[in-house]
Amino acid sequence: MSKVSTRIINVGICGLGTVGGGTLALLNKNSAEISRRVGASLQVSHVATRSLNYEQVSNIHHSGTDPFAVADDPSVDILIETIGGYDPAFDIVKKALLNGKHVVTANKALVAERGNELFEIAEKKGVVLAFESSVAGGIPIIKAVREGLAANKINWLAGIINGTGNFILTEMTSGAGQFEEVLKEAQELGYAEADPTFDVEGIDAAHKLTIMSSIAFGIPLQFDKTYTEGISSITPEDIRYADELGYCIKHLGIALRTEKGIEMRVHPTLLSKSRLLANVNGVGNAVLVHGDAVGATLYSGPGAGAEATASAVVADLIDIARHVVAGATSPIYPPLGYTQKYDDVPILHIEDIDAEYYLRIPAIDRVGVMAKISSILQSFEISIEAVIQKEAVNGVVPIILLTHRAAERKLNLAIQDIEMLEDVKGKVNRIRVAPFDRAET
Amino acid sequence: MSKVSTRIINVGICGLGTVGGGTLALLNKNSAEISRRVGASLQVSHVATRSLNYEQVSNIHHSGTDPFAVADDPSVDILIETIGGYDPAFDIVKKALLNGKHVVTANKALVAERGNELFEIAEKKGVVLAFESSVAGGIPIIKAVREGLAANKINWLAGIINGTGNFILTEMTSGAGQFEEVLKEAQELGYAEADPTFDVEGIDAAHKLTIMSSIAFGIPLQFDKTYTEGISSITPEDIRYADELGYCIKHLGIALRTEKGIEMRVHPTLLSKSRLLANVNGVGNAVLVHGDAVGATLYSGPGAGAEATASAVVADLIDIARHVVAGATSPIYPPLGYTQKYDDVPILHIEDIDAEYYLRIPAIDRVGVMAKISSILQSFEISIEAVIQKEAVNGVVPIILLTHRAAERKLNLAIQDIEMLEDVKGKVNRIRVAPFDRAET
Repeated sequence: MSKVSTRIINVGICGLGTVGGGTLALLNKNSAEISRRVGASLQVSHVATRSLNYEQVSNIHHSGTDPFAVADDPSVDILIETIGGYDPAFDIVKKALLNGKHVVTANKALVAERGNELFEIAEKKGVVLAFESSVAGGIPIIKAVREGLAANKINWLAGIINGTGNFILTEMTSGAGQFEEVLKEAQELGYAEADPTFDVEGIDAAHKLTIMSSIAFGIPLQFDKTYTEGISSITPEDIRYADELGYCIKHLGIALRTEKGIEMRVHPTLLSKSRLLANVNGVGNAVLVHGDAVGATLYSGPGAGAEATASAVVADLIDIARHVVAGATSPIYPPLGYTQKYDDVPILHIEDIDAEYYLRIPAIDRVGVMAKISSILQSFEISIEAVIQKEAVNGVVPIILLTHRAAERKLNLAIQDIEMLEDVKGKVNRIRVAPFDRAET
Repeated sequence: MSKVSTRIINVGICGLGTVGGGTLALLNKNSAEISRRVGASLQVSHVATRSLNYEQVSNIHHSGTDPFAVADDPSVDILIETIGGYDPAFDIVKKALLNGKHVVTANKALVAERGNELFEIAEKKGVVLAFESSVAGGIPIIKAVREGLAANKINWLAGIINGTGNFILTEMTSGAGQFEEVLKEAQELGYAEADPTFDVEGIDAAHKLTIMSSIAFGIPLQFDKTYTEGISSITPEDIRYADELGYCIKHLGIALRTEKGIEMRVHPTLLSKSRLLANVNGVGNAVLVHGDAVGATLYSGPGAGAEATASAVVADLIDIARHVVAGATSPIYPPLGYTQKYDDVPILHIEDIDAEYYLRIPAIDRVGVMAKISSILQSFEISIEAVIQKEAVNGVVPIILLTHRAAERKLNLAIQDIEMLEDVKGKVNRIRVAPFDRAET
């Protein structure tokens, strides 16, 4: 066994919370294995953290509370940003890039919302800005799409990319109660934040979907155009009715290339129970990617947690270190997968998509109501694939419909008309069926 | 939208069979998308094929029947070897590497059995020898383990890495008949070769497992030490009994790091039905990889077919082209993941492993036989976890046992003794339970 190279690459970590602390611990734990892989040593030379925990930083040469000091120190080769949020994360990353440092970030909000500007700086400076850990935790999905599937025109991808949401839906599916009760349970178990908005309203998933879409299709990051709908309107009854129709309900991020443009949407989705993706339960993440040559490939694993996320941060670090060791004069991989992006591909508004739909209509148990509903749908050219009519509860019968493919704009108008029927008592609940559900898996 | 760089990288393809032909077709089909990703054009300038199909090669500058002419032509930057087999594939790849060309091969037998020598040459010459397509077809599993999980100490991996075998077991599980009948069906459908030995006896899977093990653990390729057992002894009854115990039977390639050394083994395996891996059916492939930081991640998709395999060949090509464009002076990734390999880690003989076992014992329906079997097992310190005793057929009762963890050497001795019992009529069928089945998934 030959001796490992003693070349040292200096790493500065900004932020020693869950992910930053996990990264530091992992670099220490697996340092021998990592050196052997890279052919050089990754040494954490600098850390900046809000409150210094002396035990954690005792072996580190430079430790302090100012992240900009790390970004400005010429001896730092690679800066890791694990602070989170926009401010001061954006300025720290920008500063480090401008100073010619490679940067690794786990910050999905930063990449999705301000990545275009940062990647432009990284490109100009010829440095790497890596972000594997920002999507699907420890699953190397960025690498898979950007590199592993690079020979393909990506047709679509769909993922369970928020563990909190998937945990809640999994629990509701196994009969644990209404959304609010299960959310409370998730909070008690530490799977949901005190303020769960980012997770349950789909914003976190939309950040991740924005990033994956950009890499899959070669388009700029466009978070503001990603349609986002949460899971708080899903009831245990919807889950049961979907089950009767052969589906489960998952909160998916879906990106789809169509002739009209690109769809980017996060919403509860009906998915055939037989699919592998439908069987990803609990806090797990999984992404299904369909390329024109390879067909559908699935990537699944832990989407969160200190160690799983650190696994992706350190993988980025190793990639960069391998660049340095190989003497690359510019980053090998365009960060978003393309050397030239398509600026001119339209992103479709949610009203411009076509889908199949599940509708739950609360109706009075009276002769003729179904005929009226059918007639409205027909007037908007929406045809019905399946109907289940359930037992009346307090005189209200939930009518469950599955439509054939229809334009969402027309469906919205039909729902408006249905809700105005005298026999319909309350809002219609609408859930989209996965667009790839009838396609090859 | 800015103009794509016009830098041209010359590619020579040796062998235009299923994979080589698929590669040529894919490079043509997605050339615009690929140029945009690479920032250069990949141009197939040379092909060598046994019988020239003029339609296929009409646009190619140099076409002929001599692959060595491709390996020797200084204008070729990257050579693709899609001939298969050892001879002349080995000499072509070696020649190309010695001539300073990067090489992409889809040849798992070549990499598993003669890779150590070829990688040494590639390293000396500072060129890339890429082989993503040699394992699990279109699933980027080499990249995932070597790069995506590089921060981890890999504890184990297990995969369904032969589509033919998985198709046969899936069909048998859905009641399609005995092994021989289903094999015939697979041959008629084109899923199995006329001589199915490589697939059903596990040799193909052992090649792939050898390659994955090397990358996972940083050890040399050691195909000769990989234990290989096929699926021809599995019966529909075994599948049914396993099902009653909560398991399905899959043909897995398993690589496991233990305190005593490394296990590399391909054999039929009992797997809990609830696992995602257990639900990978038909010709699909899937690999489950467990890293110490990330936990378990799963990679699944099409493991064979012209287009899926070409997807991986062209991904390798794109990776190399990106190296060239970035001006890397040496390959960024050590081909087997480590700059220094561990030469001193023992590979365990199959008799030296510990496992849980499923045993099917054909016994005479007579009082006391179970007591005798238990007593033999006990004398070898093997304890029983579960027993199912089935109805007698022609006076023979299949006794189904599930053992607790035991040493395989002892189990073999116990089986010998059991088979010598007067009440036991025929061979004991033994199937190992997945070693990770009780561990965290």
